[in-house]
Amino acid sequence: MEAAPNERDMRLSWMTQPEGRAVVALDEEGLVLGTANMYPNRPNQGSHVASGSFMVGAPARGQGVGRALVRDMIDWTVERGFLGIQFNAVVASNDRAVRLYESEGFRIVGAAPGGFLHPTLGPVDLLILWRDLP
Amino acid sequence: MEAAPNERDMRLSWMTQPEGRAVVALDEEGLVLGTANMYPNRPNQGSHVASGSFMVGAPARGQGVGRALVRDMIDWTVERGFLGIQFNAVVASNDRAVRLYESEGFRIVGAAPGGFLHPTLGPVDLLILWRDLP
Repeated sequence: MEAAPNERDMRLSWMTQPEGRAVVALDEEGLVLGTANMYPNRPNQGSHVASGSFMVGAPARGQGVGRALVRDMIDWTVERGFLGIQFNAVVASNDRAVRLYESEGFRIVGAAPGGFLHPTLGPVDLLILWRDLP
Repeated sequence: MEAAPNERDMRLSWMTQPEGRAVVALDEEGLVLGTANMYPNRPNQGSHVASGSFMVGAPARGQGVGRALVRDMIDWTVERGFLGIQFNAVVASNDRAVRLYESEGFRIVGAAPGGFLHPTLGPVDLLILWRDLP
């Protein structure tokens, strides 16, 4: 297992620059509830497909923050003319996330068997999810 | 479509540094026949899975160069203790490559529909291939 990444590295890797985009979801007092980033999944002949990642803070779960971030991403990708969204590595044991994505039009198109070494569950599949746009 | 990448950018992106590795296949006179790179596919809890890419020069095709590079990669990943190899984006119309990978123990575990805009064929699936190690 590698050491936990530090804040600087995390910030650099998460804060996608144009042509990608990073967003935060705030509550009415300006507290960060969650964040998302989004970007072309591949260069050149694969650049018509977007990808992205989501994080919702533990205290904010179950309040629709993730769904709001996913919908915001879909809107952005449609606006930008992407033809599909691909999530490359959704941890299969994260039922909540998988159900959320499915309810927003994504479907499972593949799985890397045991692609994620879960700290308590052991090897868990990493799912590949796809959504046609719009 | 984006502009073709220049040599400097291509070199930087291909010449994977440790803990990854890039190799070239040479003929007896030192001419480059093909090249491969290989690296952990994901950080942290996904770093037990390797990925990589291959290129064989047009004049060298059909001579086993690709197979030699794939086998070299498998040997390296086994040596390094990886538990699997995942190819994230194999263009489905590239029958030769798909057959080669399958004959070396890989199987198709997913497909991004129309994930590659082929210059003559139009949208073609990008396959996800997997091989357990060793």
